[in-house]
Amino acid sequence: MGINVRVLFFLLLLGVGAIFYVGIRTSPIIVFVLSVCTISLFFAVYLTKWVLAKDEGPPEMAEISDAIRDGAEGFFRTQYGTISKMAMFLSLVIFSIYFFRSTTPQQEASGLGRSACAYVTVAAFLLGALCSGIAGYVGMWVSVRANVRVSSAARRSAREALQIAVRAGGFSAIVVVGMAVVGVAILYATFYVWLGVDSPNAMKVTDLPLLLVGYGFGASFVALFAQLGGGIYTKAADVGADLVGKVEQGIPEDDPRNPAVIADLVGDNVGDCAARGADLFESIAAEIISAMILGGTMAQRCKIEDPTGFILFPLVVHSFDLVVSSIGIISIRGTRESGVKIGIEDPMAILQKGYSVTIFFAVLAFGLSTRWLLYTEQAPSAWLNFALCGLVGIITAYAFVWITKYYTDYKHEPVRLLAMSSSTGHGTNIIAGISLGLESTALPVLVISIAIISAFWLGHTSGLLDESGNPTGGLFGTAVATMGMLSTAAYVLTMDMFGPIADNAGGIVEMSQQPESVREITDVLDAVGNTTKATTKGFAIGSAALASFLLFSAYMDEVASFAQIPFKQVDIAIPEVFVGGLLGSMLIFVFSAWACAAVGRTAQEVVNEVRRQFIERPGIMEYKEKPDYGRCVAIVASASLQEMIKPGALAIVSPILIGFLFRVLGNVTDQPLLGAKVVASMLMFATVAGILMALFLNTAGGAWDNAKKFIETGALGGKGSDPHKAAVTGDTVGDPFKDTAGPSLHVLIKMLATITLVMAPVFL
Amino acid sequence: MGINVRVLFFLLLLGVGAIFYVGIRTSPIIVFVLSVCTISLFFAVYLTKWVLAKDEGPPEMAEISDAIRDGAEGFFRTQYGTISKMAMFLSLVIFSIYFFRSTTPQQEASGLGRSACAYVTVAAFLLGALCSGIAGYVGMWVSVRANVRVSSAARRSAREALQIAVRAGGFSAIVVVGMAVVGVAILYATFYVWLGVDSPNAMKVTDLPLLLVGYGFGASFVALFAQLGGGIYTKAADVGADLVGKVEQGIPEDDPRNPAVIADLVGDNVGDCAARGADLFESIAAEIISAMILGGTMAQRCKIEDPTGFILFPLVVHSFDLVVSSIGIISIRGTRESGVKIGIEDPMAILQKGYSVTIFFAVLAFGLSTRWLLYTEQAPSAWLNFALCGLVGIITAYAFVWITKYYTDYKHEPVRLLAMSSSTGHGTNIIAGISLGLESTALPVLVISIAIISAFWLGHTSGLLDESGNPTGGLFGTAVATMGMLSTAAYVLTMDMFGPIADNAGGIVEMSQQPESVREITDVLDAVGNTTKATTKGFAIGSAALASFLLFSAYMDEVASFAQIPFKQVDIAIPEVFVGGLLGSMLIFVFSAWACAAVGRTAQEVVNEVRRQFIERPGIMEYKEKPDYGRCVAIVASASLQEMIKPGALAIVSPILIGFLFRVLGNVTDQPLLGAKVVASMLMFATVAGILMALFLNTAGGAWDNAKKFIETGALGGKGSDPHKAAVTGDTVGDPFKDTAGPSLHVLIKMLATITLVMAPVFL
Repeated sequence: MGINVRVLFFLLLLGVGAIFYVGIRTSPIIVFVLSVCTISLFFAVYLTKWVLAKDEGPPEMAEISDAIRDGAEGFFRTQYGTISKMAMFLSLVIFSIYFFRSTTPQQEASGLGRSACAYVTVAAFLLGALCSGIAGYVGMWVSVRANVRVSSAARRSAREALQIAVRAGGFSAIVVVGMAVVGVAILYATFYVWLGVDSPNAMKVTDLPLLLVGYGFGASFVALFAQLGGGIYTKAADVGADLVGKVEQGIPEDDPRNPAVIADLVGDNVGDCAARGADLFESIAAEIISAMILGGTMAQRCKIEDPTGFILFPLVVHSFDLVVSSIGIISIRGTRESGVKIGIEDPMAILQKGYSVTIFFAVLAFGLSTRWLLYTEQAPSAWLNFALCGLVGIITAYAFVWITKYYTDYKHEPVRLLAMSSSTGHGTNIIAGISLGLESTALPVLVISIAIISAFWLGHTSGLLDESGNPTGGLFGTAVATMGMLSTAAYVLTMDMFGPIADNAGGIVEMSQQPESVREITDVLDAVGNTTKATTKGFAIGSAALASFLLFSAYMDEVASFAQIPFKQVDIAIPEVFVGGLLGSMLIFVFSAWACAAVGRTAQEVVNEVRRQFIERPGIMEYKEKPDYGRCVAIVASASLQEMIKPGALAIVSPILIGFLFRVLGNVTDQPLLGAKVVASMLMFATVAGILMALFLNTAGGAWDNAKKFIETGALGGKGSDPHKAAVTGDTVGDPFKDTAGPSLHVLIKMLATITLVMAPVFL
Repeated sequence: MGINVRVLFFLLLLGVGAIFYVGIRTSPIIVFVLSVCTISLFFAVYLTKWVLAKDEGPPEMAEISDAIRDGAEGFFRTQYGTISKMAMFLSLVIFSIYFFRSTTPQQEASGLGRSACAYVTVAAFLLGALCSGIAGYVGMWVSVRANVRVSSAARRSAREALQIAVRAGGFSAIVVVGMAVVGVAILYATFYVWLGVDSPNAMKVTDLPLLLVGYGFGASFVALFAQLGGGIYTKAADVGADLVGKVEQGIPEDDPRNPAVIADLVGDNVGDCAARGADLFESIAAEIISAMILGGTMAQRCKIEDPTGFILFPLVVHSFDLVVSSIGIISIRGTRESGVKIGIEDPMAILQKGYSVTIFFAVLAFGLSTRWLLYTEQAPSAWLNFALCGLVGIITAYAFVWITKYYTDYKHEPVRLLAMSSSTGHGTNIIAGISLGLESTALPVLVISIAIISAFWLGHTSGLLDESGNPTGGLFGTAVATMGMLSTAAYVLTMDMFGPIADNAGGIVEMSQQPESVREITDVLDAVGNTTKATTKGFAIGSAALASFLLFSAYMDEVASFAQIPFKQVDIAIPEVFVGGLLGSMLIFVFSAWACAAVGRTAQEVVNEVRRQFIERPGIMEYKEKPDYGRCVAIVASASLQEMIKPGALAIVSPILIGFLFRVLGNVTDQPLLGAKVVASMLMFATVAGILMALFLNTAGGAWDNAKKFIETGALGGKGSDPHKAAVTGDTVGDPFKDTAGPSLHVLIKMLATITLVMAPVFL
């Protein structure tokens, strides 16, 4: 372990040091960004050291924790082995596409030949994929080490357990966000120096961000498979364990007699920690790149003298994100200052306080950044408009968190009504949950609609005008709102990572048969983790919606510049374009179907295996025999690796295939740009359908989970009653919704946006 | 009864006779259409007489049948009372909108003043609403009379029972289709004569069809509430009855001891018969009108000398539909020619044979009609292209029927796998069903995509050119394909109506405690009815998708002619237009949520009432006491009337509100036509999302139903086993999917298309 950290540290130092030189040759802003990220990474290392210094508890805990770690790391290796092979193959495809197409006059003018373009795109893609992989690994690495330390601390103090979980989550959050920023900054600086940007006869700096899209695609490619594989793993194990353990045998969750329990605990790490790390990494990367593209385009149109500020603004925002989130994380302290407390505090209140601290500083930092980078003499008050756009984004994030909480927390009416519907049976519970999920799409859509339009108009009226005097800041305004939304991403990710760590800690406590009081502490942490997990998903969808809208505009610019034809509109009154929309929406439905079905199928395998073990080894139930945990782990691992391929391939192949087919049809029927238009419409319809479907799946799943928890607090007959059984069915259905299909859709939406950008030459 | 029929007959004669005169003054084609419809209505009367002449069986059957009839007619009265009040209010709103807006120069040129325009629109709306109401009533009227006759015949012969159910269904199908055709023909002829069309300084005949949209809107308005109210009624009663009867008490379906059984049987009539009648009426009306508009527009653009053929083509197609479907219905004969048979024949094979006969003649008739009406010397081979378009439509319909059957029939793999998933519990069954439903959207979307594009290109290459030599027949080609799809609508509707009649007959047999052999016959008929019901839904969605795409084009033409600005594209890259799409898709999700939730809530009321009766009257279970059927009927009726308002109002108010809000925003921000564009995008996204959601809901529901039936055949442990219980849960969840939310979405899609057309002045 010690070596691992040191090696990591040394590599980081070496890498950052080497590229600082390039940064200096590019822009002082890059140096600022790199410095802040370096300091943050030091802070992250401090957090890990602090966490790792905590004790691992008695040997029975460590034993369980070791089994979990082995399972998680084993799966990670095979999974990422498969993913990296696919990534290598895809990079070859990308290379040949870029190498064999004809260059555009624009490219030739900027001195960027075919081969250079191919190298640049592939390099960006591979770096994005690598960083995404590291982001996933870091999330899992810390969680399989922090879980047992949280369990151990829970024997002493609730507050200490909370603090360990938060700091462990904080470590990976900072690494994930930091790496997204550093990765983009390095690529930007390297390309800047290598291509001699802004020297005569070379590329203009405003065109540079378009070269970075490969990074976003690489990140989302890996994130998609990480989320699919991890999501299938975690929920298949969970559903399978629950169906036999809880429902058939009536033993509690995480009971050591259940043969699938280790697989379930491994799932929390590979599904929730690793996958969510990759997911948010990719969100931030995609959002930074799309904002940089739009900033560059706008600066060019408005003939702003030094466009660097507009282009590099997103990097600065996320550097500040690291700083303010670190403050938030540090603000959550141990018991020291409040003295010895009796009973358990509400951990949600503590986390919320930290969030408020973070948001407070985030608003200040955002205002500062806009004044620093977006001030231009052409429109002296534009920065203020953009600062307001950022505020719109922050408010949107807050509204999303609040709405998700309203629909999924049992303090509010929807979940209570859902719990009530369990009293008339399984069927009415499922109907009510599905209705709740479908209905819960309304408020987020209204919020996002208002955010898009108001940010657009704030940007539009910022006073920035193009050559012919038309206002042009609209889209950039939306981009700034997206950044505002993500300006506390590291803290939000910390809260999210906290959940599975606490969940795992609870599992270890249960399995090592600790006293009830210890379990109580981890139960409370786990419940809070469920809420924070649900709210992060709302947050992720909101940002995905905005980021996709931005990438869509970037795509249209890209196509126009490739094809040398203006590409200003996507007219859905054209039959082919309408059909593209139909196909795009269908893609979302089929993808969700396959993701859910994969969980169902794998869970059935687990059920059969667990049933078999109970029958063949009757001693298990009386603690006389140890169940064969390893077999369940192996079954889930191999099944989820297989199952992730089909939906993933669908997501990647269909836009390319459809774009290509309609390009051919367009050539035959003499409709220029038909392929590009159909793909654009497909992308937009898929984004809209994806947002709604993800909201539906996440909220329904979260609500079912908490309706069950509400009944378990003693309502409607409590545990073991008929309503409880119905609620458990709802929870089972909700599992693949909220932890497999839903989060995979977030990634899918952004992956579609980046794949169309990178693959644009195929459609033209 | 006798009086009813005679009154109906007399009114029909009088009406048709009076307007024949107007028809003669308009076009010989109108006379042909009216004649065919009149003959068909005579044939329909013959069918009813034949059905009513059958005996009503023993008094215990008649008693039950009377209770069902009273319940159904009581609900129908209150429901349509409410609907007609809303329709009156809405017609006032429409009148004031048209009366107080400024007229366009075009209107003034055609001599159509503001008040005339207002009267025309309101008259069309009210006639459409009235006809839709009658269509619903006729469906229910015959089914509450035929059910007991089918039960009685089932005591003698399976074939006779089948024949009665088919002929009763055929009666209402012919009335529904005939009325849609006659209604449009009358309006067309009346307006033609009244406005002096084609005389100098008057309206051109090619503009006339736009005046008919009110008829489509009236029809879809009534159909929406009929489907919502009826759908909620039937499924709340069904779910409620099953949850206590089957699941808790373990008594069979339709057992006389169940207090909710009469409500359940009433539901079949008001939900399936009345609502589906109104639904298909509205499909055909919307499709005829949109095709007439497009035919007119195209004829005008191509300067075709006599455009009447192009405009009246849909009316002729549906006249032939009546003829060929009548042949199909008649081809299903009693036992006479095949002699006395032992055992039960497969009724599906008999119905399929009738369908093949119908399709054979439909293809011939379609080819004939295209040659007769679409032949023009400007493009001598155009009619052949359009005939091929019709063939595309017929093949599409066939493909839809086949796909639905594949996904919902337990002879095929999907339903078998679904049944298998029941063996691991309620949860895995629900997950598998939802995945199946989501996945089943893929093939229909591919089919409809191919149909839209190929019909468009067949039309495009038909040789019809506009003034500047551009091909213009594309959209009309799609319209012809839609007509091809609907060219056997009357026979399809017959098969659909057959289902609930058989279902009801089975209920009467069970309740009057007939011997097992009788029940067997009605069970087989009922099972076939489930399949035909499911396939009709596929058919209805396919035609809704095509019809909406046509109405969308008509809407753009309408807006352009109102606003005197070209309106050629809906560009989803504009933020507001994108937001419109988001809101449109959201509308579908929320509407589905509310429809399902309404069933869930009402079913819970039923469950509580039935539980109460079982507790308070313990004698019920031993046949010593009679349950209070009336109370359940009253509860369901009043609840479903209340519950239908919220989703219905949402569907009607939101497009108007959003269009108006964005019109205002467009005025403020100086974006012309913003309201119209946002509504257009909303409409398109809602159509796409609606098609997918309806496919998902219908297929999942049908598959769950049949997975349960498959287990009941003895598979996986058969009735009463744990897998069967899980399958019953799936069936319960599927009920509101397939019979409330799903079919309501078909209507919603078309209602949105017509409401935007009629309300266009609000957005401008």
